[in-house]
Amino acid sequence: MAEAVERLQQRVEELERELAQERRRRALGGGDGGGGRARIEKMSPEVVDSNPYSRLMALKRMGIVSDYEKIRTFAVAIVGVGGVGSVTAEMLTRCGIGKLLLFDYDKVELANMNRLFFQPHQAGLSKVQAAEHTLRNINPDVLFEVHNYNITTVENFQHFMDRISNGGLEEGKSVDLVLSCVDNFEARMTINTVPVFSHISTKACNELGQIWMESGVSENAVSGHIQLIIPGESACFACAPPLVVAANIDEKTLKREGVCAASLPTTMGVVAGILVQNVLKFLLNFGTVSFYLGYNAMQDFFPTMSMKPNPQCDDRNCRKQQEEYKKKVAALPRQEVVQEEEEIIHEDNEWGIELVSEVSEEELKNSSGLVPDLPEGITVAYTIPKKQEDSVPELTVEDSGESLEDLMAKMKNM
Amino acid sequence: MAEAVERLQQRVEELERELAQERRRRALGGGDGGGGRARIEKMSPEVVDSNPYSRLMALKRMGIVSDYEKIRTFAVAIVGVGGVGSVTAEMLTRCGIGKLLLFDYDKVELANMNRLFFQPHQAGLSKVQAAEHTLRNINPDVLFEVHNYNITTVENFQHFMDRISNGGLEEGKSVDLVLSCVDNFEARMTINTVPVFSHISTKACNELGQIWMESGVSENAVSGHIQLIIPGESACFACAPPLVVAANIDEKTLKREGVCAASLPTTMGVVAGILVQNVLKFLLNFGTVSFYLGYNAMQDFFPTMSMKPNPQCDDRNCRKQQEEYKKKVAALPRQEVVQEEEEIIHEDNEWGIELVSEVSEEELKNSSGLVPDLPEGITVAYTIPKKQEDSVPELTVEDSGESLEDLMAKMKNM
Repeated sequence: MAEAVERLQQRVEELERELAQERRRRALGGGDGGGGRARIEKMSPEVVDSNPYSRLMALKRMGIVSDYEKIRTFAVAIVGVGGVGSVTAEMLTRCGIGKLLLFDYDKVELANMNRLFFQPHQAGLSKVQAAEHTLRNINPDVLFEVHNYNITTVENFQHFMDRISNGGLEEGKSVDLVLSCVDNFEARMTINTVPVFSHISTKACNELGQIWMESGVSENAVSGHIQLIIPGESACFACAPPLVVAANIDEKTLKREGVCAASLPTTMGVVAGILVQNVLKFLLNFGTVSFYLGYNAMQDFFPTMSMKPNPQCDDRNCRKQQEEYKKKVAALPRQEVVQEEEEIIHEDNEWGIELVSEVSEEELKNSSGLVPDLPEGITVAYTIPKKQEDSVPELTVEDSGESLEDLMAKMKNM
Repeated sequence: MAEAVERLQQRVEELERELAQERRRRALGGGDGGGGRARIEKMSPEVVDSNPYSRLMALKRMGIVSDYEKIRTFAVAIVGVGGVGSVTAEMLTRCGIGKLLLFDYDKVELANMNRLFFQPHQAGLSKVQAAEHTLRNINPDVLFEVHNYNITTVENFQHFMDRISNGGLEEGKSVDLVLSCVDNFEARMTINTVPVFSHISTKACNELGQIWMESGVSENAVSGHIQLIIPGESACFACAPPLVVAANIDEKTLKREGVCAASLPTTMGVVAGILVQNVLKFLLNFGTVSFYLGYNAMQDFFPTMSMKPNPQCDDRNCRKQQEEYKKKVAALPRQEVVQEEEEIIHEDNEWGIELVSEVSEEELKNSSGLVPDLPEGITVAYTIPKKQEDSVPELTVEDSGESLEDLMAKMKNM
């Protein structure tokens, strides 16, 4: 009888342990490896319901990507695991990226539930911990390294720089890409570090010559952008203020207690989508990689442009990278140089920044006040020819003696 | 002693029950209401970490939406809970929509894991059941009604029509919007019902005069579109073939066993994002609602246009709705009629379909072969003036006696 009691007591303890474990697993986001799937050694193109990579490997058959498996050789760092960063991490995880490094110091709150990814039962957990658990469960083939700290303190910044330089797929190798997904509002409202965060990313990436992409969503929730920064080749974050900022919102208002900015799962989903699409195009070498792509949700307007670096950039590492890039270009065979120079066009401005845009002036005007809110001193130079009324008014007619205005007036009377 | 044994045995049974329940909850996707949050009676703008609606209510303060709470008065039906439909449902759930009706007959498979939303531990569950559980957990304030059936059978179609007509927020009221999120590939590969599905939606919505939005992603995973259809006012799905179809992919190839189309979480996330953004703009009355918005991921190109209905549409209910719309417009006060007529412009074509586009011909040409792949017989009429060489070549000059060609030739010589 005593034996029976002992056996039952052991069973109760065992069950209590299992139950506690189950509850912990559920709280963390749906389960651990046991609730997910087994690891897969090699991506297969086989078309069976049990293959999580069949629809990605099909990109090869469709002629979009020549070597999809290469995705497993890349490591990507994401700074900020909020509305954009968490969805960015999930997309890359589902695509089968080799390694993800996540940096954030925030906790999940119910107030985050209007955006994708986190769930109410995760409230109170650190964002990186909750994200790692969910992501590992979605795809156990991805390697995860998470850091629950603020990268802007001196000590953490050193550690962050070290992980960017050495946290690649093989230890000692640098990561392939850094993505800045700082939630403008949250960072700003909690410790007002957005500019610091972005500045820190810029500083780190310029110092290391690290290629990175920046993303942002406006405080009114209806516009956003992504930007690719190749130190020395394209404008860095310090070359010019961010192209999308709070649209005419007084900073003081934002900082008043009890006031918060708006956010939408739609805008953040679109920004994460175009960001990761740009990452895939960049890493897997397909399509056109955008240097800048904006999203104006009010008018469904998506401006694209590329921005040359500012030779007078405040960041000395950016200037250094520009010098090195110039040397690299100068050393290129002639044909490649010509191709390079085609991109450099039109007037300079006081900032020395040149923009190449695929957007018409009319389109820009229609969406002015929202995006792109060009920083002072920056003008747009067009790649598509302007309408003739606008572009050649100063020219005089040499062969017929008639002015262009006369010809235009005649045409208007037709 | 016997009492102790009995008590322990009861405890073991109790724990086993709880454990089984926990495991079931976890398998279903993260927990039930207990793991989530309590229901909220009234949306509050209060800025506290525990308020899941604070960032949405902030849209009012930002001047974007005048009455955000109105979202709780709408019911939206989603047909197809795949790569686009599931994310669409999640976004609307997080936005606090009043009621969601989900229709799908498919099961979750590991092969779906390259897109957002479903998780590996849900493999084998029906999509609507798994989705309902996850969504209810994310936001218990939303009412859910799910139907695990194929809407294309006669009996199910009748039931589907009945739910569209009577499944609104109050029983007996129709839903406010139907969203077609059929995953082109999956439907096509499993029972080849895409055209049927879309046709059925068209039939149902034309018959009921129901406003709906269509979405689609191409088989090569790098383009997609959304389309708003107001029966009688804009082109229905039967007025013209879908604008985005498999880009030059042989149907026979797709149907061969062991071959599947590609898909990406990025493209599907962007399409779901622009779809739900359009839904929010439509229901909450802000920004410009797009009749057609395309996404070409290879070139980051987003064409928009609106399409008039085809007076010779095969669907007699569409023609009937067109007649009724004409009567409605004719009965409007004069000013409103003028505004209506401004939209009807330029040349007719053999199909009688007119397109109004904000896209330049150059942009369209640059992206041809991908999107929009205009169906035969449809041409594009521009709202932005064409370059004059193209648009008025047949006109003769009346006041100066010179031909336009002469004037153009002179201008070219400048």
